[in-house]
Amino acid sequence: MSLTANNLPQHPPTDPAAVPEPGPQARSRPEPERLARAALSRLGEPGDATLGRWLARLDALDVVRAIRGDAPAEQLGVDSARLAAFRARAVDLDPVADLERVRAVGGRFIIPGDTEWPSQLDDLGEGRPTGLWVLGTGSLRLLALRSVAVVGARACTAYGAHVAGDLAAQLAERGWVVVSGGAYGIDAAAHRGALAVGGPTVGVLACGVDVAYPRGNTALIRRIAEQGLLVSELPPGEHPTRFRFVLRNRVIAALTRGTVVVEAALRSGALSTARRARDLNRHTMGVPGPVTSELSAGVHALIRSGAAAVVTDAAEVAELIGAIGEDLAPQRSGPVLPRDLLEPEAARVLEAVPATAEGAPVERLARQSGLPPDEVLQRLYELGSLGHVERHGAHWRLVRRR
Amino acid sequence: MSLTANNLPQHPPTDPAAVPEPGPQARSRPEPERLARAALSRLGEPGDATLGRWLARLDALDVVRAIRGDAPAEQLGVDSARLAAFRARAVDLDPVADLERVRAVGGRFIIPGDTEWPSQLDDLGEGRPTGLWVLGTGSLRLLALRSVAVVGARACTAYGAHVAGDLAAQLAERGWVVVSGGAYGIDAAAHRGALAVGGPTVGVLACGVDVAYPRGNTALIRRIAEQGLLVSELPPGEHPTRFRFVLRNRVIAALTRGTVVVEAALRSGALSTARRARDLNRHTMGVPGPVTSELSAGVHALIRSGAAAVVTDAAEVAELIGAIGEDLAPQRSGPVLPRDLLEPEAARVLEAVPATAEGAPVERLARQSGLPPDEVLQRLYELGSLGHVERHGAHWRLVRRR
Repeated sequence: MSLTANNLPQHPPTDPAAVPEPGPQARSRPEPERLARAALSRLGEPGDATLGRWLARLDALDVVRAIRGDAPAEQLGVDSARLAAFRARAVDLDPVADLERVRAVGGRFIIPGDTEWPSQLDDLGEGRPTGLWVLGTGSLRLLALRSVAVVGARACTAYGAHVAGDLAAQLAERGWVVVSGGAYGIDAAAHRGALAVGGPTVGVLACGVDVAYPRGNTALIRRIAEQGLLVSELPPGEHPTRFRFVLRNRVIAALTRGTVVVEAALRSGALSTARRARDLNRHTMGVPGPVTSELSAGVHALIRSGAAAVVTDAAEVAELIGAIGEDLAPQRSGPVLPRDLLEPEAARVLEAVPATAEGAPVERLARQSGLPPDEVLQRLYELGSLGHVERHGAHWRLVRRR
Repeated sequence: MSLTANNLPQHPPTDPAAVPEPGPQARSRPEPERLARAALSRLGEPGDATLGRWLARLDALDVVRAIRGDAPAEQLGVDSARLAAFRARAVDLDPVADLERVRAVGGRFIIPGDTEWPSQLDDLGEGRPTGLWVLGTGSLRLLALRSVAVVGARACTAYGAHVAGDLAAQLAERGWVVVSGGAYGIDAAAHRGALAVGGPTVGVLACGVDVAYPRGNTALIRRIAEQGLLVSELPPGEHPTRFRFVLRNRVIAALTRGTVVVEAALRSGALSTARRARDLNRHTMGVPGPVTSELSAGVHALIRSGAAAVVTDAAEVAELIGAIGEDLAPQRSGPVLPRDLLEPEAARVLEAVPATAEGAPVERLARQSGLPPDEVLQRLYELGSLGHVERHGAHWRLVRRR
């Protein structure tokens, strides 16, 4: 299908002000802005700077108009040569089908302005994703509020896998959401560690959220979607490339409060995530290891250069990111979403949480709220992000106000 | 024997100016200052602050006079209560016998003002050792010029022992003198690593240089005395105490350009050496290890607190201490001892070293200089400290002048 097909959003030709404001995510017919961004997400590679510059000045719909030739490129101030390149790539574009395809597997496409959009991605500037394809339950924005990336080598050692799993489990037990890349090695160990203690975890993929890559992690990736979220800039069906892995790392770095590198050889991909995190003024941390291990050499180099702090357990990670957290997190200045603005399910779970010091386990909260335990847990993490509740061992309790 | 015995130095009772100046180390009859300091080294515990304060203002001989009661304590400005305590401990004092005892095993007692005295010990202020009992060949001052401490846990892991040995060997190959405490574990591995590649090494003991402690290191301690130096503040025959170990650490820290901690549990003794080094503005370095190992926890804590830099091999250690070294080392501002002031043996070895880029091995230099290989190696390290020669693999060559 070509760009002139009817399923591309039609813009009122004379009045750009008539473009609908980005609203809450549509359940039925996608708004033109969402449709336009879905189209651009397939047209441009992640982090495309040209596209980013255009989108910084124009609505997505105007950019699509320029690509379609409905508006003269010069008048929009966009580079006509680059425009031609986009136009050439625009064969077979069908954003409506893409949106339907992701919805068919239970996913969605979120864009800036949506309630679920994590506003910290704005720190990426012109490299901000056009939109994010998301699969799973729970709000990406809320999960990302108290999130930390745990990344590292694919071909990790037993030591690295053990440390990553342990660290992720401890972070999840402290109410932190572990974000990683869904790859073999450290990534998989981190996701598994969080899942093992019932914590949600976010996998940021370099392929479509409906593509299980790497193949060997199929079951793990499915579990992440069930208990947490899969996130990608790439539309359904897309496969990873070396370039896409590197650009995916910037999303992991921007989404989280800090990045922990567990094992990384010199010149490894995990180090690029760490450097991105550093550039974005996120906390960058490294777990040391034996100096006799090449897989710790990259981490040690990062630490030696002053680019990363040494962390040896979850308490140390929480101490670092929590310090900034006190400023960023909603607890201090009052919750971002007050109780009466909570979604009905979250409000029901919150009502079930006791004010006692010992709290209650998920099962009891599920019985009392009449919601399935999986959803209760998801909501508890959201409520934790908002400063309403906190985890205490296997129990959850209300946060006492100062 | 009491303090009034004839073998204590007699001071001219009326004219303090008649006290002999500290001169080059006497081969035959010890000078009064050396004898007085030998007496004080047995009277006071290492680092005794009271004694240090007295010695900062008075000659050792005057302090001995005060202790003997030859001069009124008030007149000397010393605390009479502490003086009485010293007097009570002064039974059986026999410094002449002590000096003969150390000479009998091939050692000596060096004091501030001696050519061999390492002037960096002045950084200890009032805690500066009264004198040092030394056993072995080579000049402590010259060996200490390019020295680095490698210390750590006694009950180290196989990883720690491997890393310490490897690090020490590589440092020795780069012409650095490895200083440690002669203890089990990391200390022993560091000494052995240096000895294995033919490097001199300095063991700073918390007992007399004639006492093999710990017993299991007897052979190692003997080898250190043969190929390097044993050093102690404590006179012959003294045994270590917990207190003496801790105070010994300050000498290791002050003597060297930097201290590397290889493995240390939290609250370990090796950390006290590191903190001392830090306080003395020496480089403090830590070798990371598995975060799952309690024996790396102390090192990681040191690094995390910012008190120590991360080092993972000898090149990184040399980079750190060498940077300061460029300022401290004699190469830049011309040698401390020009050729014509060298001891005759050192001058003979220096004459044998070729000006070619490939240099010559120790054996050839021994043949050409007519000196035994052990002494040649010792002299080469001294000449290296003075910036005359440098090691190049197994060969030694002249340093090219800029």
